[in-house]
Amino acid sequence: MIGASGALGYGLALRLGAKGVPIVIGSRDADRAQETAGKLREAVPEGSFEADANGPAAERGEVVFLCVPFRNQSETLTNLKEHLREGQLVVDATVPLAAAVSGKATRMLGVWQGSAAQQAADMVPDGVRVVSALHTVSAALLRDPEAQLDEDILVCGDRKADKARAAALIELVPGLRCVDAGRLEQARIAESLTALLIGINARYKTHAGIRITGVAP
Amino acid sequence: MIGASGALGYGLALRLGAKGVPIVIGSRDADRAQETAGKLREAVPEGSFEADANGPAAERGEVVFLCVPFRNQSETLTNLKEHLREGQLVVDATVPLAAAVSGKATRMLGVWQGSAAQQAADMVPDGVRVVSALHTVSAALLRDPEAQLDEDILVCGDRKADKARAAALIELVPGLRCVDAGRLEQARIAESLTALLIGINARYKTHAGIRITGVAP
Repeated sequence: MIGASGALGYGLALRLGAKGVPIVIGSRDADRAQETAGKLREAVPEGSFEADANGPAAERGEVVFLCVPFRNQSETLTNLKEHLREGQLVVDATVPLAAAVSGKATRMLGVWQGSAAQQAADMVPDGVRVVSALHTVSAALLRDPEAQLDEDILVCGDRKADKARAAALIELVPGLRCVDAGRLEQARIAESLTALLIGINARYKTHAGIRITGVAP
Repeated sequence: MIGASGALGYGLALRLGAKGVPIVIGSRDADRAQETAGKLREAVPEGSFEADANGPAAERGEVVFLCVPFRNQSETLTNLKEHLREGQLVVDATVPLAAAVSGKATRMLGVWQGSAAQQAADMVPDGVRVVSALHTVSAALLRDPEAQLDEDILVCGDRKADKARAAALIELVPGLRCVDAGRLEQARIAESLTALLIGINARYKTHAGIRITGVAP
């Protein structure tokens, strides 16, 4: 769990840890990772939370969740190059909000590759797979163990097996259902939903999410 | 109802006509409009359906739904310039799918103004208001009177009053709820959902729609 000191990474670690998934917390600063792992152990005493700097943390899991702000995504991936290895799956949750360059959180940046997820796919070592997910779930709800989730996660990726692998983990979180949203190039649409939901959250004073209607559970 | 011979326009006319809203069917070809109005009268005998060419049809309503394919949007709006008048509200449902230029229906075109709706706002005469809506509702479900709808319509526009005016009409359709999705510039995100849903429809063999969770009805 890279960037697990942030709100989304913390929330996801909390929810997956509570379901018995062993979690390695990664942060740019190993001390900060330890601190986050300590908080998680307190919140979920039955969970398994270890901590390390991003690089070594990324080596320790088959599935690596990338939960960093867009402004750190490229640097983080550059630093992970020598740590990621063939066969690993990176689940990229990065959203290129204009807020990354002091713009509005309801606006998006144009990413040369098309989306943050495609930039990630461009930067990982050969043989590392990338899917895009978790753009629309509220970090505030995820990190609140009392909050009931009831929404969908759009998963984009170029191989069905990768998407199924990510979905099997994500769907351990009660109330989250994964919907196959197509190839990785569709991530630009899924990512932009974050900007739309941020506006809706402000307008309706809520933590909005997405449900795809007409897709049988 | 401009472009009401198409699937979305027909479905919307059918649903609104059944709720007692008087509808003027517009089509590029007045004969085609008459034909569509005839079909609608047959389907909804209690409804009021008149027909005309797009121009005169657009003059006859306070709210003008623009339900044309993107490839016809610019030409249609050019032709409507002398017919639209101050105070009218255009509800633009256009989606710039790449299919408009023989590309994939799961991909979007970049529109210089940012979205089809902003292009519409750019092209209407002064004093004509534009909101963007109805991108995610399945035309196939709308035009099937037996189909139960249960989904949200994202409405984008620069004035709350315009969005409320559009929502009051759209929400006459049972099972549709409007969510204020922000300024007109957000239409680029709402429009792109069509491409995402077209992919989901193909993958799940369904007529998908969108629900925003966490927004109280």
